[in-house]
Amino acid sequence: MMSRIETAMQSALSITQASCPPKLASALQYAVFPGGHRLRPRLAITVARACGDPDPAAADAAACAIEFLHCASLVHDDLPCFDDADLRRGKPTVHKIYGEPIAVLAGDALIVLSFETIARGVAQSPHKMAGLVSIVAQAGGAPHGICAGQAWESEAMIPIAEYHRAKTSSLFAAATSSGALAAGHDPLAWRVLGERLGCAYQVADDIRDAADTSEEMGKPAGQDAARGRPNAVKELGMAGAIGWLDRLIAEAVDAIPVCPGQMALKAAIEREATAFLPAELHIRAA
Amino acid sequence: MMSRIETAMQSALSITQASCPPKLASALQYAVFPGGHRLRPRLAITVARACGDPDPAAADAAACAIEFLHCASLVHDDLPCFDDADLRRGKPTVHKIYGEPIAVLAGDALIVLSFETIARGVAQSPHKMAGLVSIVAQAGGAPHGICAGQAWESEAMIPIAEYHRAKTSSLFAAATSSGALAAGHDPLAWRVLGERLGCAYQVADDIRDAADTSEEMGKPAGQDAARGRPNAVKELGMAGAIGWLDRLIAEAVDAIPVCPGQMALKAAIEREATAFLPAELHIRAA
Repeated sequence: MMSRIETAMQSALSITQASCPPKLASALQYAVFPGGHRLRPRLAITVARACGDPDPAAADAAACAIEFLHCASLVHDDLPCFDDADLRRGKPTVHKIYGEPIAVLAGDALIVLSFETIARGVAQSPHKMAGLVSIVAQAGGAPHGICAGQAWESEAMIPIAEYHRAKTSSLFAAATSSGALAAGHDPLAWRVLGERLGCAYQVADDIRDAADTSEEMGKPAGQDAARGRPNAVKELGMAGAIGWLDRLIAEAVDAIPVCPGQMALKAAIEREATAFLPAELHIRAA
Repeated sequence: MMSRIETAMQSALSITQASCPPKLASALQYAVFPGGHRLRPRLAITVARACGDPDPAAADAAACAIEFLHCASLVHDDLPCFDDADLRRGKPTVHKIYGEPIAVLAGDALIVLSFETIARGVAQSPHKMAGLVSIVAQAGGAPHGICAGQAWESEAMIPIAEYHRAKTSSLFAAATSSGALAAGHDPLAWRVLGERLGCAYQVADDIRDAADTSEEMGKPAGQDAARGRPNAVKELGMAGAIGWLDRLIAEAVDAIPVCPGQMALKAAIEREATAFLPAELHIRAA
């Protein structure tokens, strides 16, 4: 699976490289490789496979498009005017290496590449194109995508549920619904699975942040408290947050629509979700 | 024509507004309205009309998509890490009003909206979708779109022709080719017209910058010299640059493909191109 995703992403990214301004070309590679856990594209491919994976090119395009948007958001969120982060995935952030102008442009170019990748990957099945572009756009932009999620942090009053829906769940929901659509299944039926998983991931992220696991995260912990951002552990306590995480994962599994690979998908989701938290925290919660 | 474009843009932008974080929603409106001359969307619609305009929804979507990308690039190019501009279109820049975080996000959301607009406007003619998304993506991203154009400014050696092609001509070429494709014509045949017009526009911009027409431009003049950027007047002198501009416009007109509205289009292009320079400079050149 990982090799399928990395290969597809390298292939999609390669169209930006020849005759590109060298710093931008290098920054694009740096922002995308090596990746993190690739949770979102793995989710898209996992869903497409559960639906029989009849159109792997479309599934790969959807998976890459979502991960490119995610990488773009990391590059921009790390900028000095946002988190001013020095580290991401255990290495210096893009603007630390290439400077702010190239970091802004690399994020922009990755957003564009996201849609270009869909256009290339789905050219043979044009009836899926509008749906896939819409799913990815809604997850990326305003009012309910990751741009909006980040923009809530500039408001005095943050509606917590909408904030998490936009900032985190949107890309997970796009992963499940685009994976299904790529395989010819109804994308709407698959949204709830992604939304619950996205919510679970956010709670897990809050737990990791509050539990101070900088080394395992590859980025500084304690950021939510330092920045006054909402955090599930602050609201529910550590045990409460871990209990909520377990309930969200159970709801996600229950929300899996009927499909050829339904049982295998349930097992895969439960296995994947375990990795949302480092082993140390599972032990602490047990 | 202007009312058709403004109406289409307002309609496309409206999907971002409800339940959007208020500052981002406001910044998106501010970045798009009131616009400048809307040269690129007018060019797209003008070409679609010359081709008979059989699918106005597709032509509107292409025109809006290109103008949203253009607006996004203005918002990001004005940021402190690039031009650090205080004024744009005669009013304070987006980051001056809303701050840098919202300015970054507004640009990002406009890039996303560009593709979402195509998905909505072309949903009834899916065979045009991949082509339109590809045209707009190539004009926006890397290696030959406006992101790459801006990124050349971070390199020690700037290949002038490629720099102008990416930074300016790309969106004009996308305007003519997407306008043609929206109307069911061959987009490739229409690229040269857009490229020549884009090049002409760049030379006109260089002339305005060198001639110090801050008031008419709605932004500070003399920026190229101040920042050591390439400028046609520096290379060719004022008379040489104006002569080159005239030749580019003549080449553009000669490149118009056979279409139902060919003669009217020639007249329209010649009329529009006159407005590339303020009247004062036409008089100075005469």
